Amino acid sequence: MTRKVAIIGMGNVGAACAHYIVANGFVDDLVLIDINDKKVKADALDFEDAMANLPFHTNIFVNDYSQLDNTDVIISAVGNIKLQDQVKPDRFAELKFTGNAVNEVAKKIAKTEFDGKIVVISNPNDVMVSIYQKVTGLPKKHVMGTGTLLDSARMKRAVGAALNVDPRSVQGYNLGEHGNSQFTAWSTVKVLEQSITEWAQKDGLDLDKLNDDIRMGGFTVFSGKKYTNYGISTAAVRLTMAILNDAHIELPVSNYREEYGVYLSYPAVIGRDGIIQQVQLDLPQEELDKLQYSADFIKSKLPQEVK
Amino acid sequence: MTRKVAIIGMGNVGAACAHYIVANGFVDDLVLIDINDKKVKADALDFEDAMANLPFHTNIFVNDYSQLDNTDVIISAVGNIKLQDQVKPDRFAELKFTGNAVNEVAKKIAKTEFDGKIVVISNPNDVMVSIYQKVTGLPKKHVMGTGTLLDSARMKRAVGAALNVDPRSVQGYNLGEHGNSQFTAWSTVKVLEQSITEWAQKDGLDLDKLNDDIRMGGFTVFSGKKYTNYGISTAAVRLTMAILNDAHIELPVSNYREEYGVYLSYPAVIGRDGIIQQVQLDLPQEELDKLQYSADFIKSKLPQEVK
Amino acid sequence: MTRKVAIIGMGNVGAACAHYIVANGFVDDLVLIDINDKKVKADALDFEDAMANLPFHTNIFVNDYSQLDNTDVIISAVGNIKLQDQVKPDRFAELKFTGNAVNEVAKKIAKTEFDGKIVVISNPNDVMVSIYQKVTGLPKKHVMGTGTLLDSARMKRAVGAALNVDPRSVQGYNLGEHGNSQFTAWSTVKVLEQSITEWAQKDGLDLDKLNDDIRMGGFTVFSGKKYTNYGISTAAVRLTMAILNDAHIELPVSNYREEYGVYLSYPAVIGRDGIIQQVQLDLPQEELDKLQYSADFIKSKLPQEVK
Amino acid sequence: MTRKVAIIGMGNVGAACAHYIVANGFVDDLVLIDINDKKVKADALDFEDAMANLPFHTNIFVNDYSQLDNTDVIISAVGNIKLQDQVKPDRFAELKFTGNAVNEVAKKIAKTEFDGKIVVISNPNDVMVSIYQKVTGLPKKHVMGTGTLLDSARMKRAVGAALNVDPRSVQGYNLGEHGNSQFTAWSTVKVLEQSITEWAQKDGLDLDKLNDDIRMGGFTVFSGKKYTNYGISTAAVRLTMAILNDAHIELPVSNYREEYGVYLSYPAVIGRDGIIQQVQLDLPQEELDKLQYSADFIKSKLPQEVK
Repeated sequence: MTRKVAIIGMGNVGAACAHYIVANGFVDDLVLIDINDKKVKADALDFEDAMANLPFHTNIFVNDYSQLDNTDVIISAVGNIKLQDQVKPDRFAELKFTGNAVNEVAKKIAKTEFDGKIVVISNPNDVMVSIYQKVTGLPKKHVMGTGTLLDSARMKRAVGAALNVDPRSVQGYNLGEHGNSQFTAWSTVKVLEQSITEWAQKDGLDLDKLNDDIRMGGFTVFSGKKYTNYGISTAAVRLTMAILNDAHIELPVSNYREEYGVYLSYPAVIGRDGIIQQVQLDLPQEELDKLQYSADFIKSKLPQEVK
Repeated sequence: MTRKVAIIGMGNVGAACAHYIVANGFVDDLVLIDINDKKVKADALDFEDAMANLPFHTNIFVNDYSQLDNTDVIISAVGNIKLQDQVKPDRFAELKFTGNAVNEVAKKIAKTEFDGKIVVISNPNDVMVSIYQKVTGLPKKHVMGTGTLLDSARMKRAVGAALNVDPRSVQGYNLGEHGNSQFTAWSTVKVLEQSITEWAQKDGLDLDKLNDDIRMGGFTVFSGKKYTNYGISTAAVRLTMAILNDAHIELPVSNYREEYGVYLSYPAVIGRDGIIQQVQLDLPQEELDKLQYSADFIKSKLPQEVK
Repeated sequence: MTRKVAIIGMGNVGAACAHYIVANGFVDDLVLIDINDKKVKADALDFEDAMANLPFHTNIFVNDYSQLDNTDVIISAVGNIKLQDQVKPDRFAELKFTGNAVNEVAKKIAKTEFDGKIVVISNPNDVMVSIYQKVTGLPKKHVMGTGTLLDSARMKRAVGAALNVDPRSVQGYNLGEHGNSQFTAWSTVKVLEQSITEWAQKDGLDLDKLNDDIRMGGFTVFSGKKYTNYGISTAAVRLTMAILNDAHIELPVSNYREEYGVYLSYPAVIGRDGIIQQVQLDLPQEELDKLQYSADFIKSKLPQEVK
Repeated sequence: MTRKVAIIGMGNVGAACAHYIVANGFVDDLVLIDINDKKVKADALDFEDAMANLPFHTNIFVNDYSQLDNTDVIISAVGNIKLQDQVKPDRFAELKFTGNAVNEVAKKIAKTEFDGKIVVISNPNDVMVSIYQKVTGLPKKHVMGTGTLLDSARMKRAVGAALNVDPRSVQGYNLGEHGNSQFTAWSTVKVLEQSITEWAQKDGLDLDKLNDDIRMGGFTVFSGKKYTNYGISTAAVRLTMAILNDAHIELPVSNYREEYGVYLSYPAVIGRDGIIQQVQLDLPQEELDKLQYSADFIKSKLPQEVK
């Protein structure tokens, strides 16, 4: 009975998740949590002011951890992207601040009877997923990060734009850390039934340029508006719906891979039980090396207590 | 062929309109315009980064006034709500800044072949609607403001909360200026088939307290987050869809009333031809006086050239 | 966790409910039950053939009563409208056949651990609601009928068409039996803030003609296609969503009214706990008499065992 | 201004298309045409009876060919599936009846000022697409058939069910005639980043059994309910939305391929200009042979006048 989702962290990203959910009537009960009590109450009231002009009713609960007891999915959008405002953008600039915040939140979650799934948006993503899992003690498959689901969407946007097709008609994955060491696994990318390398050879598609576009996508958005929220919130809500629907859909998200000993982004099958199956890609050595590098990088950044 | 909407002014309100529209696939072509070129391009890219995870495709055009030639509806969210950040909040604090901006925009629209409808969110709303209509020279019925569609939604939220019913089960209107002189026409308000005065008499519902809640609703949101966007953008998009759908639906919006000689909010029937019919309420003298006061107030604030 | 709805009876009405639900991704788990095993399996497969072209995943279960254990809402569309194919259409032509079928189904439900709400579409509606409630032993407020939610929608369509406004801009109710003794409570009907009697007086709106249009609406559809399904299924799904969302919305549905001692249609507030509040209309004597007549009629038709 | 779609042929398939469109508010104006005037008027009224309980308004026009003048997309669901009710089901049993009906309809379309796109569902699909194109004289790229978009969805359903993943996580195509000579191009099918042949080798997936499931999918549904409508209508509406949205999405539909000299199903990129790009698959000889066979078969069945 009831689809119940909680969003913790109501900055630009959390609020865009909430907006998308409320505007579509995706859930029955929505819990909004933020340390800025005035801000989150303002958002809640603003959503309630929208209700009379929307088709579906959503019950909104504010800053009440006890509501997590029977919540199905928590979306963590805790963080402070402004800490990244530097010459060379780096999600690890947020590590200490967001790491502390996530620790606090995870401890509070652990004190409730919450037994659902956690979808982590907070950055650096793979590290924050690890912290949530360790501190809450939830099964590894019940905690996941949006990871390169967003980077893959950016890759599809960039490749689609280059070839004048819908991003939905681009297949393939970005893998590894949701951060500077992530990469497009070009061996997996296919458009209109041709591999991207064929497009590069035959049609002169410049993969290096595309690579830059994709990796810098988020930073372009970021430098233009000092945050990014629509791409990432759409990815997070899609992942949340896949869990609620028990969709068994394959998505590249941050999930714990035994062979690397860390959370990193790699396609997995998502259902009501979280990560219900792991996919095995057949990557060329070059991409395996990049993935190993990315895994090592994430591992090196893990706080001592979650290693 | 194609539903084509333009949003001018991509601050928090314009962006929330765009998000709602893109997330639901409401239109085929979406034109985004803002003087902050970097910001609007960032938003456009952010929406395109969402596309691969959304069900419907939307074509996005940025800062290109020529796209207005065949646009159906322009949503004007031009403005600067931060100018209102004062001890006593007042939408007229924006008058000069937003008036100038709207003038500029309206002149640019007039230079295109645009022959659609304009839905104005900009504040002070009734004045800005007047400016758009005068400068573009469009028929009065083709230019309208969201006006008290939002205030009415806030009233429904407040009354619904007080009586524990869905805002959609509250009938009635806020009328007049979308500003401090607006008022709830209590004579029109009905809940569960009882007039609000019956609720006040029998159930001790405190209308004065409700009145304060409603008028201050926006400012509560505003003081909590320094802007309001979800309630207003939902109202604007609903109005836009009513135009596109040719819905013939009755909504309280800012429309030109001959008997008052100004744009002010009063229920009207909305369709593809804009304001297709005006409603005549049977208001008690007290409410007629308030409406007259509100009309006079708006008139007194109209810039010389649009009087 | 999960929105779970069951539809029992997959004729034209049940199938249209299922289609609406699946096409919108309204629920996570959908249980389809019908005595025609081949037909219901065909529908389920047909929906699954739609899945790859739809945005949301729905899990479909077929002819498995044990799935009702944790179902939130059962929609009963059991019946055989073809029994009504007569010169003078009458939903009571279905009484014996559908009464028996509903009895069987209700007994099977009673054997499961189902503890949700039942939304009854089966006809004669008010009688079938009674049977479901008696046989399952569920609280009266957890069993309800779509009743005159459909007749009210037909009234809004007819009145809206006569006055050239959207049906959503027509307020008011049809009351009583969902059958030949139902009536439009004209005292509750308002359009563009004028009572319908004012429209009749000033604008020459012919209420008798409208009355006929409304009561015969269903039969017009029926005679044209030998069943009616879109209006009724939309009403049933809206009611179901109001329960799931805990919307606290006022809708005219068949609910048990102590003062009449029967289930009949009268506005009530709908939430997760079913009928969470009953509304009290202030009807003129003429309409009270019609309602009493309708109540007496329903009572006279109740099978002995549910009286 | 306005999305305008017409559905010609309001049997079970056309009506399901209309239901899906109306329930989602996908278009502003919907034209419904059928030779059974009573039936199509009943459907239209039934949809209008749903309006008060739906979020969006749709204007419905009935049996008025002049409405096609400014229609964007015509969906042809003309046909009589019951003619296929035989021991060995075959869409060509409809050839004569539906061919005549389509000829009549196409001539009527040709007399209007219609200059949009036609999405043909009528069977035998590839032949009916040819007739529409020839008789209306529209550009070949503006007339297309749903073709194996449905068969591909059935393949994805069957493969997904066999491997316990969402149909959306199965890639690949069925090609050729939308009929008994169509086939799954196994070389294009991939699940969780493994080709289907790898699944067959490693996991013992039985492709022959799957082949039968897929080809017989429609007939299973058909034998269970004497028609199929949800899978096919969802495919048709998705294709229609891709045209309206100018989505540039790749879908396997019946489009005219020069090298075969006939309409047959093969992936193409769909946009506002219809078939905006043709895809070139790299098929193994065995599948090329099957495709040639299928093309030859379609060609052999084309009426003299459209060859």
